[in-house]
Amino acid sequence: MALRYLEDYPVGSTAEVGSIPVTADDIVAFAKRYDPQPFHTDPDQAKLWPYGGLIASGWHTAAMMMSVLVNSFIDGEVSLGSPGLGPIRWKLPVRPGDVLTVRARVTDVRTSQSKPDRGTLTFEVDVLNQNGDIVMTVENWLAIMRTRPAQQHASG
Amino acid sequence: MALRYLEDYPVGSTAEVGSIPVTADDIVAFAKRYDPQPFHTDPDQAKLWPYGGLIASGWHTAAMMMSVLVNSFIDGEVSLGSPGLGPIRWKLPVRPGDVLTVRARVTDVRTSQSKPDRGTLTFEVDVLNQNGDIVMTVENWLAIMRTRPAQQHASG
Repeated sequence: MALRYLEDYPVGSTAEVGSIPVTADDIVAFAKRYDPQPFHTDPDQAKLWPYGGLIASGWHTAAMMMSVLVNSFIDGEVSLGSPGLGPIRWKLPVRPGDVLTVRARVTDVRTSQSKPDRGTLTFEVDVLNQNGDIVMTVENWLAIMRTRPAQQHASG
Repeated sequence: MALRYLEDYPVGSTAEVGSIPVTADDIVAFAKRYDPQPFHTDPDQAKLWPYGGLIASGWHTAAMMMSVLVNSFIDGEVSLGSPGLGPIRWKLPVRPGDVLTVRARVTDVRTSQSKPDRGTLTFEVDVLNQNGDIVMTVENWLAIMRTRPAQQHASG
C-alpha cells in the first residue's frame, strides 16, 4: 500500500480505522506496570468500586487506540511524531471482552511555514465499544511529511 | 502511610513526586505493542529521523508518569478513576538513559454537588529529564474520595 502523506488526508473525511479486542490479561498487565490502581489490577477488589469490576486504565485505552492508528491511519515511515494532543475524555469504562473500534475525522491540515515539505495533521478520534458507545475521545496532532517526494527523508 | 484524600491536597501546593529511569528495552517493548513507529522501535532506523535516535512514544512517557503518580501522589485505594485530562504537550524527546522526574502542582479541589463524600482533584504535571528540562506537561483530573471516613468505600 502506498504511504500516506499529509496531502492524502482530506479535511472533513471520516474513517473507521480498525478494531482491537480487550482482554483481562492485557488490562492487568498494563496496569500492574503503569497504573496499579485496584480497579485496573485486581478483578476481586475492583468489585468494591462503583465500576463493579475490572476496567482498563485510561492510558491503556489510549495506547490501544494508538496501536490501531499506527499503520492503519498513520504511516510510521512518513510520520515525524507528535507535539501533543487535545483534551482526552474517558467517557465510559472499558472492560474485559470489549472490542474497541477507532474512528478518525480529519479536522485540519496545515503546511509548515518554515519547512514546506511537512505539516501538521489534526484529527479527532472516537473510540467506540461493541455497542457503539463512545468510550474515549481525543484530538490528535501529528507532524507528518506533506507530499510524496522524489527522495523521501526516511528512504535510506 | 495514611491514605491521602481530597482534603489532603492543598490548592497551590507543589510536590516532586518521584523519578523513573528510561531504558531502550522498555521504549522498544512499549512501542512494538502500542506505537510501532520506526523512531520508537528501531535504534538504527531512528537515526534517519530528525530526532537522531530512538525516542520514547509519548504514550509511553505518559504511562511512565502515571506509574510514578500512582501510590506516590494518588492512592489507588481512595481514587475513583479519571474522567479525562487536559491537553498534553510532548515538548522534548525522551531517550534511553534519561531519568524522568514527575512534579505535580494542585490547581483545583472541587467537592461533588450530588455526592459530597467525593470530589475532583485537578493538578498540573511537569515531567522533567535529568537536565531539568520539561519533556511533557499535562493537566490531570482525578475523581477521589473527599474525607477520611469512619467506613471507607473500599475497606471491604
